[in-house]
Amino acid sequence: MAARVPIGVLASGSGTNLQALIDACGEPDYPATIAVVISNRRDAFALERARRAGIPAVHVPRFRKRPRSEHDAAMVEVLREHGVRWVCLAGYMLLVTPTLLDAFPDRVLNIHPALLPSFRGLHAQQQALDAGVRITGATVHFVTPGMDEGPIICQGAVPVRPDDDLERLRARILQVEHRLYPLAVRQAVEGRLRLDGGRVRVDARPGEDNALWGG
Amino acid sequence: MAARVPIGVLASGSGTNLQALIDACGEPDYPATIAVVISNRRDAFALERARRAGIPAVHVPRFRKRPRSEHDAAMVEVLREHGVRWVCLAGYMLLVTPTLLDAFPDRVLNIHPALLPSFRGLHAQQQALDAGVRITGATVHFVTPGMDEGPIICQGAVPVRPDDDLERLRARILQVEHRLYPLAVRQAVEGRLRLDGGRVRVDARPGEDNALWGG
Repeated sequence: MAARVPIGVLASGSGTNLQALIDACGEPDYPATIAVVISNRRDAFALERARRAGIPAVHVPRFRKRPRSEHDAAMVEVLREHGVRWVCLAGYMLLVTPTLLDAFPDRVLNIHPALLPSFRGLHAQQQALDAGVRITGATVHFVTPGMDEGPIICQGAVPVRPDDDLERLRARILQVEHRLYPLAVRQAVEGRLRLDGGRVRVDARPGEDNALWGG
Repeated sequence: MAARVPIGVLASGSGTNLQALIDACGEPDYPATIAVVISNRRDAFALERARRAGIPAVHVPRFRKRPRSEHDAAMVEVLREHGVRWVCLAGYMLLVTPTLLDAFPDRVLNIHPALLPSFRGLHAQQQALDAGVRITGATVHFVTPGMDEGPIICQGAVPVRPDDDLERLRARILQVEHRLYPLAVRQAVEGRLRLDGGRVRVDARPGEDNALWGG
């Protein structure tokens, strides 16, 4: 088996997508390993999840009076120290700057709880409820300087049910998120994603599907 | 059995969604009947489909130098002559005006080949291909004066496949469109759709699903 590719995960919150990646990396044939988890919040449960899994967990604080690029530079240092090749944003609530993106060109991924290009930005699940859509979902995409833009790797759709509240809808979307991110990371670290004019060409394996239904 | 509710269909093109409604209305328990089909194009195949099914087919030309509201007024006259209660846009390529909407308040439906609010306007399937999304679909919604806005009744999602061209994607979306429109019209004419602050509440029957997957 080839050496596993080291990835870094940035998270601000409870880190359920981090957990999905931890679980995937626990499988014998998974091609990635999480080398470090970074959070801007000292008390993020994501850091605790990392520690429990024996993964280095680093708090990189965001100093409000300093430029955001300095914060990203501090993260880049940590990521490089741990030999990270790919960076995964997982519930990371700050916009990343070119400082991070230039350090890992075309190697930063994000997951967003909507079917982009619908419902960019914060509170995507609530946006979907407010819009009255019957279908929403989640998207893994390459990160570009814009918010929730960037070439799309895979998406999963889920129904919005008449009796959904925010928590129920969020949970249904998370289920498909937890299938999407390990798929995207596998394809990424195996070199099977190719950027082609703002779109992503996938060298998919039999049985892989970059369009999921979580109905 | 209750009397069938007369609907009118406006179409500009070949009318495959019209055909899906014609087929649905041919079922013994379907609650609607198509009273008239109107097209702004004399040679629209939709008119021919109507004639073949024994449905009155009316060409209402659009005179370019007259206000669009006059065109809509002429259509309203035809729709009223035929006792129409609900109006379905099916590949109707002109924006409708308040003249039509006020004559049939909250009783005009449209089908759009995308998962609204993504990809409004023309060439929605090409927009989806250009955006590189993995999932797109179709939406039936109430018509409001804006383009492809208005409360959403039902949606169907379909995967975008790596080897899709416009025709293949269009065909896959049409398959789900042909399931969506008869469902929406049934719920509409049976009085099971309720507008509630820009959203649609559906009094759904067992087995009905306003979120479809056409994968």
